[in-house]
Formats: sequence, C-alpha cells, structure tokens
Amino acid sequence: MVPASTALLTDKYELTMLAAALNDGTAHRRTTFEVFARRLPEGRRYGVVAGTARFVEALAQFTFEESELSALSDFCDRETLAYLADYRFRGDVDGYAEGELYFPGSPVLAVHGTFGECVILETLALSILNHDTAIASAAARMVSAAQGRTLIEMGSRRTHEQAAVASARAAYIAGFAGSSNLEAQRTFGVPALGTSAHAFTLLHTSSNGPDEQAAFRAQVDALGVGTTLLVDTYDITAGVANAVEVAGPELGAVRIDSGDLGVLARQVRDQLDSLGAHRTRIVVSGDLDEFAIAALRAEPVDTYGVGTSVVTGSGAPTAGMVYKLVEVDGIPVEKRSLHKESHGGRKGALRLAKSTGTVVEEVVHPFGNAGPEPRGLVERRLMTALVQQGDPVSGAGLDAARERVKEGLGSLPWDGLKLSRGEPAIPTRMIAARDSPGN
Amino acid sequence: MVPASTALLTDKYELTMLAAALNDGTAHRRTTFEVFARRLPEGRRYGVVAGTARFVEALAQFTFEESELSALSDFCDRETLAYLADYRFRGDVDGYAEGELYFPGSPVLAVHGTFGECVILETLALSILNHDTAIASAAARMVSAAQGRTLIEMGSRRTHEQAAVASARAAYIAGFAGSSNLEAQRTFGVPALGTSAHAFTLLHTSSNGPDEQAAFRAQVDALGVGTTLLVDTYDITAGVANAVEVAGPELGAVRIDSGDLGVLARQVRDQLDSLGAHRTRIVVSGDLDEFAIAALRAEPVDTYGVGTSVVTGSGAPTAGMVYKLVEVDGIPVEKRSLHKESHGGRKGALRLAKSTGTVVEEVVHPFGNAGPEPRGLVERRLMTALVQQGDPVSGAGLDAARERVKEGLGSLPWDGLKLSRGEPAIPTRMIAARDSPGN
Repeated sequence: MVPASTALLTDKYELTMLAAALNDGTAHRRTTFEVFARRLPEGRRYGVVAGTARFVEALAQFTFEESELSALSDFCDRETLAYLADYRFRGDVDGYAEGELYFPGSPVLAVHGTFGECVILETLALSILNHDTAIASAAARMVSAAQGRTLIEMGSRRTHEQAAVASARAAYIAGFAGSSNLEAQRTFGVPALGTSAHAFTLLHTSSNGPDEQAAFRAQVDALGVGTTLLVDTYDITAGVANAVEVAGPELGAVRIDSGDLGVLARQVRDQLDSLGAHRTRIVVSGDLDEFAIAALRAEPVDTYGVGTSVVTGSGAPTAGMVYKLVEVDGIPVEKRSLHKESHGGRKGALRLAKSTGTVVEEVVHPFGNAGPEPRGLVERRLMTALVQQGDPVSGAGLDAARERVKEGLGSLPWDGLKLSRGEPAIPTRMIAARDSPGN
Repeated sequence: MVPASTALLTDKYELTMLAAALNDGTAHRRTTFEVFARRLPEGRRYGVVAGTARFVEALAQFTFEESELSALSDFCDRETLAYLADYRFRGDVDGYAEGELYFPGSPVLAVHGTFGECVILETLALSILNHDTAIASAAARMVSAAQGRTLIEMGSRRTHEQAAVASARAAYIAGFAGSSNLEAQRTFGVPALGTSAHAFTLLHTSSNGPDEQAAFRAQVDALGVGTTLLVDTYDITAGVANAVEVAGPELGAVRIDSGDLGVLARQVRDQLDSLGAHRTRIVVSGDLDEFAIAALRAEPVDTYGVGTSVVTGSGAPTAGMVYKLVEVDGIPVEKRSLHKESHGGRKGALRLAKSTGTVVEEVVHPFGNAGPEPRGLVERRLMTALVQQGDPVSGAGLDAARERVKEGLGSLPWDGLKLSRGEPAIPTRMIAARDSPGN
C-alpha cells in the first residue's frame, strides 16, 4: 500500500543536511530555493510546465507521523526528529502556473522559507515537476502535430502504475481529449476512454475457430452502435465488413492498431464509405509518436491513440530540472561559477510579446528589479503565488491549464512549433543579480 | 492522496470488455493471459525481470469498494458492478522469479482464470512489470560495468515520486548497494544512503563570503568523520584540503559531482594520499550511465552515484512487455499471424546451460510438453508458482532476487555482457503449440 504521508519521498541527504544545520544553527536562515532547467531536452523548442498543483497538494501531506519518524530514527538525532514531528511547511511558494510554457533558466518554481523547511522538499518538488513536465512537454508536441484531431492517451501499461495516473493528467493538460486510465478520471477528472482489445475478439473462439462477428455483436449489445470496434485482429477488410454488418452504418468508430496505418486508414475509409458508414470514424493506434502523428495528417484519421511515446516523454522521460539554493539571508549564492556575474538570488520572470501576441523573449530578472520597460512590447509576468505562509493558494484547475497550453502554443513564433530539432523558440535573457559575495 | 485500492489502475476498455463478456456469457470461459516481450530494447543483450512481487502484492489490493464502484457507475451496468463488488482474483499466476534474466518471447508471467477475472489485470500487471523490469535491466548493465565497485541509486528526483520508490527497489535487485530514497528503505528495506548537497555548503555563506570549512565542520560534528564530504562546490583542490583539515585523515569519503570525473578522481586520490588520507574513499556522481561507469574503471573511483540514467532505464524507459490472451477453454488463440505455427497456448520455459554453467538457449514450449531431453546440457525450469487459487505463494524476498541477478549475469556467454549494441545473448527457441483453430 502507498502511505498517505509524502514525507519519505525524499532523499536521505536532505535529512542529514537538516540534522547538521540544526546542530550548528544554520537551519533557521531564510532561504530561497529555485527549480529550473538549465536546458530543454535535446532539440526541443519549448517545454510545458506541469505538476505544480500536484506538488502543492503533496506538500500538504508532507508530515512526519509516528511511522515516518520511526523509519528515520536509525540516523536522525533527537533534535532532528523533534523538528520533523512539528514540521509543516510554513513558507511561500511561487512559480509558473500549470500549462505555462518554459524555456532554459525559467524559474519554474521558487520555495521561500528557512533552510530546514525548504531543503527537505527537494526530491518531492523535483520528482513531481520533472515527471509531469516531461510528459506534458511531449504531449504538447503531439497535440500540435495533430492539428485539431483528437488524441487519446493510452500508455498506462508502459509506465509505473502511479506515474500512469500523473501521465494521463499531464497529457490532458497538454490538450489530449482523455486517457484510458480510470484512476485519472476518479482522481483528476480526466475523461476515461476506450472500448476493447484483441483479447475480446480472440475470446470469441470455439472449437470451430474464431468468430469475429460474435465478438462485435457482444460489444454492440453491451455498449451500443456508437462504440469503437477493433478491426485488425484477423483480416482488416473482413473485420470492417463484419463490423458494419453487425453494427450497421451508424457504427461509431473502427480502430486499427497495426500495419501501415496511413495505407490502411485510406482503404478502411473507402470501404466504410462504400458500405454507407460515412460517419463512422477511424481511430489509429500502435507506436505513434509526434512524428508519426504528423505523417498521418494527410490521411482520413479522426483520432490517434498514443501510448508508449507520450508516457515516456518521447525520448525525454525527465525534464532535468534542478532545485538550487539561490539565496541565504538575502545574499545571492551560487555553486562555483565561471562567470563574473551571479545568477544566484531570488528572481522574477516575464515574457515579452509583440502586439500580435507572438512572444519574442523570456526575461529572468532579480526579484523586484525587472529592468527598463520594454519598448513596443507587451510584457506578461510569469510568477504566481502558489502557497502563502504554508497555505495553498487555490488554483484554477485543469481547464485553465489546458487553455494556457493552447494560448502558449499559439503565441510561439512559427518555427517554435517545428518538430525537428532546434534551438529554444525564444531566447532567455538573464539579468544578473548584484555581485554575490559567494563569487 | 493515493487510494489504497489498486483496482482503478486499469484501462477503461478492460471493464467495457468485461461488461460485454458478462452480457454474452463469455466472461466465464477459462483463459490464460501471458506477459512477454517480443524483443529486448534495441541492442540489449538480456533483460532482468523485476516487479513480480510488487504485482502479487498489488493484486491483493485489487478490490472494488464503494468509492471505486461509484467511479465506474457512469458506464458500467448493474451486472458488471455487482461482479466487481464481489471481485477477488481467485485464479493462478506463475512466471519468472524476480531477478531472473529474460529474452525475447520468455513467458515472464502467466495469469490463469476466467476471462473476466484475468482481463481486468492487464494494465496493473504491465505497468508494474514494464517499469520495474526496465529499471532493473538498465541497472544490471551498470552493475556489470562497475565490476564490483559500489553503486548508489540517486535518481528519485528525475522520475515520478512513486516510480522513484520502485526504481530504488529495482536497482537494488540488480545489485546496487542502496538508494537515496527513504521511502524505499521503509517500504522495501533498500538501504538508504547519502550525506549532503551543494546547498549545505552554500548555506554557510555570510556577508564575508562563503565558508566551506564551516559547512564541513557542521557536517562532521553531526555525522562523524566517517561521512562523505562534497568537495566541488567551489574549488576542488581547496575543497579536498578543507575536508581533510576539518575531518582529519580518517575522513570517510569525498564526493565529486561535476567536471571530468576521471581526471579529477586521479588528482583527488593523489591529494588525499599526500595528506595521509589513504583510506578516504572517492565517490563520483553526475550524469553517469553504464558507459561512463565503464570508462571510469581505470580510475581510483570507489563508488558511483547514478541518477537519471538508471531511473529512466538508460534509453529504454519501458520494457515493452504485452499481456496477451493465448488460450481460451484449452484452445490456443493468437492475433492474425503470418506463420503457420501458432504461438498461442499456455507455455512453459526452460533454460539450457553447458556443464560449466554458461547458458546456451531459452526454450519456450507448450505447457506440459518440453520436447526431447537436451543432450549434454543442463536444463533449468523457469516458471514458478506466484499465486495459487488467489493466494500469494510466499516469495523469497529481495536478497534472493539479488542473488539471482548475480548468478544470471555470471551464466551469460562472454559477449552477453558487452555494453555495445548486439543480439540477445542466447537465442529463444519457440516450440509451436498444436495447430490452433484460430489460424
């Protein structure tokens, strides 16, 4: 069983650091930790932030009850255990809203509080954001490639059982119509979709051999003629004929899960039309990724079912974000730097757009100092309050996140949506903090 | 919060198939579903089965309580809901033990029972096995590349927060010494390891600038001289000098997390030796994968910390296993096949080895018919009972799985352990079932 507390979804070193910092008194210093990605996954032109609301929810469950404390008692001293027993995050979190695009260096999340209360959130924050953002970023490319056609996420079986639920949510944020995953419907309201697999057709086999019509009849009896019949278990042409014979021309859809999907979609469309099933839709699935989706745009495909590639981030299974201490008691800090200028310090961020809405630059600046007004450009501030003094700021939900992705994709310069490898769609300008004593 | 029931970690189509099969009476047919991978991830020479015990545990929690039933009531008819309310898996499961190697076509898991009780387990079984097997398979290559040196899994932050716990477990099965993840220690007994991050050194910054010695002193005070000090926050040579000055020559270890790890390991070894810290170990981390681990074999590295690459399966984040109906009421069934011979039907599997222990062939055969005795070869049967009439068969635990991986790697022909892309280390011979009426 999965424990209710999220407090042990943590790397041990965060608690040994806490113990040492409590011991020398530094645990109470005021700090800012920042989550950002140094770069996008190779060749990607934008990323889509996801997981923010999941993190805020997990934060409320980040408490150390007896079971958690006893699991730590072999290496935590008494003072540390007492600190953890009382622990509840009482600081502030701000960051990019879910569904917002991000670029290299974007301060996607910032956590403000004492060193002790912030340092132990590193793994939880990164696990959630790195996973969900990787999925949403891949999914958005597929949505963009599908140019308005329906996408269904059906990759639960190719990823960890709980990651599957979060993946369904992230793909939905990116613009997928729904997911096969039932837990994602219960937990997050992601529409659950799907009708049948090859097993159901194969089940209708007797000593006389297979009986595809019996399978289709059983499905239509149970689910109605609006259902989707899977037609490639045996011979596709016979399958389509059987499907329309059983369901009639009002059949909702047929699904093709193997073979040359483009060629088959055209053949099946012609066959459906010749049988009078003009409104029967065609669903294709089977190892689709954003490139395959784009390649099928010229074909009569109505819906894409996408599995492995979306839940594994289509080659980039993690967003590679890091959680870095950037400020201590108001002093910017930074790991050994080759540059004179510090990128430590608490930050703000804004995105500049032309009056047409097309974005031109991401600006990451020292907190409270955004630099000169942009000339002739529209600026939009990107950091929003997520947690204030430990209390979650109520978010706008998944629909708002979906809208944000749609607007974000629409705001990119034309080459930002290309699927080919390239540079980030817009540059990030980092305005340096005042010179850090740490350098 | 993550619900205790695993029943909704399921694709919707499994329940619509169940509804249709209950409706036409086929839900009660006796079936066998089989989990196997058609191929290994590209270029891999072997895979390592993991997740089996997690699946068996999740199966016991696969029950539909009021909350689950109400989540399904919008599309499940009354008969289906009543079936689910009573549901408890009462069939049999057998398969490869955790830590066993597998090859293309190996029947890694087989689920026997009525269609209704088996079909709804597809997603749960695949999610767990595909994820855990992907991680264990990548981790085993790293263990083999490290040639006896210690490996620590520290990738929790790069994967979904619950996948992180399962990844730690899978890497441990493959031979890692432990993980950074505290939940994996609590839940599975995986040793938790780790001491400090750059944030702790940066925390010790004042208006006078950084104070690495203060950070090291705080850590040694709290954790003792046996701790691992992270020496690359500022200048590594100064860091090593500070570390030994603070902790003395009995310092447990230093960690280097950036730069040219091979060059730095040599320099740091020389410096440690010159300071009399001959027994201080060197830990390296930072974007290591199996190739980087192998490349550092000639250097004085004692321990590798591995993150992203292990939790993302080092390029193969899913094992690509499928869950296929292979037998209905004793009749082998199979999706449209290009071959005359059926690979449907319930199966057994054995592995043939020379008397030296080196394996030569995987044999997958119809259940109860293993074919002729091997001449001069030793055979080992691979399927073990995991669940009998719904009750879990108690497994041997993680230590036994670790031993099995070690033996498995030791049994491969010499080129089976090569890291380069290649063919499976041994061929799989599929002995066809009797000709299926489904073909």
